[in-house]
Amino acid sequence: MNNLPDKTVERLSQYRRSLNNQLAKGKTHIFSHEIANLLHITPVQVRRDIMLIGYSGTLRKGYDIQDLVNLIGQIIDTDNGQNIAVIGMGNLGKAFIHYLYEKRTKLKIVAAFDVNPDKINKSYADVYCYHMDQLEEIIAKESIKIGIITTPPEAASELADRLRDAGLKGILNYTPKPLSEREGVYLEEYDMITSLEKVAYFVKNK
Amino acid sequence: MNNLPDKTVERLSQYRRSLNNQLAKGKTHIFSHEIANLLHITPVQVRRDIMLIGYSGTLRKGYDIQDLVNLIGQIIDTDNGQNIAVIGMGNLGKAFIHYLYEKRTKLKIVAAFDVNPDKINKSYADVYCYHMDQLEEIIAKESIKIGIITTPPEAASELADRLRDAGLKGILNYTPKPLSEREGVYLEEYDMITSLEKVAYFVKNK
Repeated sequence: MNNLPDKTVERLSQYRRSLNNQLAKGKTHIFSHEIANLLHITPVQVRRDIMLIGYSGTLRKGYDIQDLVNLIGQIIDTDNGQNIAVIGMGNLGKAFIHYLYEKRTKLKIVAAFDVNPDKINKSYADVYCYHMDQLEEIIAKESIKIGIITTPPEAASELADRLRDAGLKGILNYTPKPLSEREGVYLEEYDMITSLEKVAYFVKNK
Repeated sequence: MNNLPDKTVERLSQYRRSLNNQLAKGKTHIFSHEIANLLHITPVQVRRDIMLIGYSGTLRKGYDIQDLVNLIGQIIDTDNGQNIAVIGMGNLGKAFIHYLYEKRTKLKIVAAFDVNPDKINKSYADVYCYHMDQLEEIIAKESIKIGIITTPPEAASELADRLRDAGLKGILNYTPKPLSEREGVYLEEYDMITSLEKVAYFVKNK
């Protein structure tokens, strides 16, 4: 199960989130059209994704929510966890650390980096912030495989090179500056303005 | 042009971001397969989206980048701008305000809200933070149509009701708590964990 399309993986993560929310409400089974409604996509899409991971529900009751949550976990989670670094301890970097703090997830932020003397050599929510000069050293020492870039945009490209050279396998670029792909590194980019422009478009036309 | 699919609008915003980046590099024309590469999607998808907004390039040179950027702007931007409120002045709320600060965009954050006495009645990057009790009053006074929810997750659902009742037409939910749709309000949700889980999946399988 290591060759799922990008967008399927993204939706599996979103399915799990919604399904856990339904479980918390006491629901045990769910139909594809209900999942589709929760995520504003088509039931066909939901059924196709779930078939792709080899699961099927029953016509009468739909999918067993707990089973589906477990299966998605087996597919997208890692057994031993993955160590993550946040580079750039501005509001967004702190928001990421705060978000994952005390969450039961296999994804663990183990280090942060910045150049601001007010931020380095102290901890934020149990994550220690190092000077950027120590990037390569700490990545090796902590076996970090994923980097979240939350620096000012002009620093992103050079930083991505350093992260690749230091052996990172995944980069999540949160700056508004699009990066080019680097051989051997999976790149995901998210720009906050995209979500906002989407809402604005539909509000304009309401 | 007011009935484009959700995902098309999202991609148009992403196309524009990448295209502006190409313009800045001095490029004037671009082929669909190049745009596809930049966004990790298929050329067919790019061509379908751009056909949908009634634009076409030439076989020899591809799309004129500046024309395409202008057209996307006409479709997704609003002429008079839209006023936005951020609710929840934690790291994420501040990150949003900071992000849009001094950007040339028609989307304008005009107010922030919180309940923490340390945050209210002061400005952050020119955005004034009010107490949550003033939510309805300020929304009416400032003609706010869009709300970004960056509160703790447990506050999101009740807050969404208040925003709808106050006349908002769009909600961007940035908490990990999925919301249900509210009549007359466009809902967009983004969970930071989704981007991270996606990277982690592909890193695991590298």
